[in-house]
Amino acid sequence: MRGAVIHAPGDVRFETLDDPKILKPTDAIIRTAVTCVCGSDLWPYRGLEPIGAPHPMGHEYVGFVEEVGSEVNSVRPGQFVVGSFATSDNTCANCLGGFQSNCLHREFMGTCQADHIRIPNAQGTLVATDEQPPEELWPGLLAVSDVMGTGWWAADAAEVEPGSTVVVVGDGAVGLCGVIAAKEMGAERIIAMSRHEPRQKLALEYGATDIVTERGEEGVARIKDLTDGIGADSVLECVGTAQAMQQALRSARPGGNVGFVGVPHDVAVDGEELFYSHVGLRGGPAPVRRYLPDLIDRVLSGRIDPGRVFDLTLPLEQVADGYKAMDERRAIKALLTP
Amino acid sequence: MRGAVIHAPGDVRFETLDDPKILKPTDAIIRTAVTCVCGSDLWPYRGLEPIGAPHPMGHEYVGFVEEVGSEVNSVRPGQFVVGSFATSDNTCANCLGGFQSNCLHREFMGTCQADHIRIPNAQGTLVATDEQPPEELWPGLLAVSDVMGTGWWAADAAEVEPGSTVVVVGDGAVGLCGVIAAKEMGAERIIAMSRHEPRQKLALEYGATDIVTERGEEGVARIKDLTDGIGADSVLECVGTAQAMQQALRSARPGGNVGFVGVPHDVAVDGEELFYSHVGLRGGPAPVRRYLPDLIDRVLSGRIDPGRVFDLTLPLEQVADGYKAMDERRAIKALLTP
Repeated sequence: MRGAVIHAPGDVRFETLDDPKILKPTDAIIRTAVTCVCGSDLWPYRGLEPIGAPHPMGHEYVGFVEEVGSEVNSVRPGQFVVGSFATSDNTCANCLGGFQSNCLHREFMGTCQADHIRIPNAQGTLVATDEQPPEELWPGLLAVSDVMGTGWWAADAAEVEPGSTVVVVGDGAVGLCGVIAAKEMGAERIIAMSRHEPRQKLALEYGATDIVTERGEEGVARIKDLTDGIGADSVLECVGTAQAMQQALRSARPGGNVGFVGVPHDVAVDGEELFYSHVGLRGGPAPVRRYLPDLIDRVLSGRIDPGRVFDLTLPLEQVADGYKAMDERRAIKALLTP
Repeated sequence: MRGAVIHAPGDVRFETLDDPKILKPTDAIIRTAVTCVCGSDLWPYRGLEPIGAPHPMGHEYVGFVEEVGSEVNSVRPGQFVVGSFATSDNTCANCLGGFQSNCLHREFMGTCQADHIRIPNAQGTLVATDEQPPEELWPGLLAVSDVMGTGWWAADAAEVEPGSTVVVVGDGAVGLCGVIAAKEMGAERIIAMSRHEPRQKLALEYGATDIVTERGEEGVARIKDLTDGIGADSVLECVGTAQAMQQALRSARPGGNVGFVGVPHDVAVDGEELFYSHVGLRGGPAPVRRYLPDLIDRVLSGRIDPGRVFDLTLPLEQVADGYKAMDERRAIKALLTP
């Protein structure tokens, strides 16, 4: 098979690799329908995370089952399946508690920018659609496997409720999907913090009611202006930097909630500030599996269209161009077609 | 009037002070029924918080209304009242959101170890009992004004539910009241972390089902042993040190909740650790006013007996001995009678 391998910052190559094989009876092999580049892939690409030895990349996928291990009977060859960037048995205590991305047998995906993929914990991870979905819905279903699931989790962790006021920090694909989630959950006001015109436009189309371009203390002041001086009920932190976390915490009202889903890089939360803020904080890798059936339904029914976050489509072999375009902010998110 | 004044670490004196006066039309003056020394008073007493100029101390109180300002009509002279360490108008957006301890007009109490006290925001802060309660219930009602309200808030912030498993970090008066709260909220298992025999005993009498004496990584391992390797549903952090916060966060299961009510001193929460833990975190000064009517009822009906946290009773003029006894851990909490 062929897939992406990162060698060094800025150096992603499309290479021939060993075909994936069933290694455990709980594995499945899928043929990739579509895959993509994630904002979090840019951390190592930008040299902000160690790379170590060259290794495959990618953790978002939808595809067709080609082969299953002896213990997998929930999906069968030929079916179209959606999974999650974190695999889970869906039976352990943490899975039963709804935190499948903290499964006791969790394995994070990392080889998905390829034409074939081995899926560990296939039984608990993959959800098959009843029929093969039309090709135009593949991007939306692909989004569900990570960014849409993560945006949903951000809104869930931030306890978005009907009628509430929501701030979304971060205008990447996850932030934009957070806008979709907040809208679906009935938020009355959705304030998207964004400086990039195409992203502002999509945020508004997804349901944002206000755009705030300021950042830092000015951004906080602007949010307070828009919320009677009190702050928002729910804030979705979809970046992962210390600045974004501070922005999020200071934008929430006393008693409000911050859901943080940007993988934190050098983020420390000051205990005293959090204490006096009364803000609730919860985050982590999204338990996508919990939301899969519902989100797949919303995409298939046309109720939501998270596939629009892909504003660049490339053949899989041009994966390196996808990284480059996202790094240079020429694209929100690059779809890759094998 | 006479009351406690702190001059320096270890130096609390009982002095004659100016009688309190109505300064604003929203004030009331009460004659103290009973007051006490708080665990948080020990931070400056131990030199761990700056003291500055000598100043009065104390923020817990029940008493009899002597005088009210022109805008106060919810209580009247002669009534027995319970308040909160944080005063609130109970009408602003934060109060209406249930976070009265973040009232836009909040003033923290700080002169309550005295025979008379000025109460700002009296209308929104004080709750009068229907009749004068019997003297033996005064300590319980006093506890409601801070430590019982704070223990309740810790359990509420940690989302304790019927049937859940709860860990209480800290065996001071707040931690012990946290045990009461967890029990009242229907927790099935309540694990108290305590090394002090009299406190262990009271924790068990209040409803704790297990005592863990280990701390740090050993303490976490012990909690995991007791919870099928997963961790507790809810953890009440009732200390305020970095060690206690770490203990709390690591004792919660993925998706569990930590309520933190110990005033944080040099506590920083690592963003990455919090992220991968999936633990929800909320804390702050307890919104005691939200709970007052309910907690007063529970004390008056004899359903809960938080007054037992007072294991030393002293005349108010011996307030310095109360600080000393608590500092030396000879007492859990010192009651002071004017």
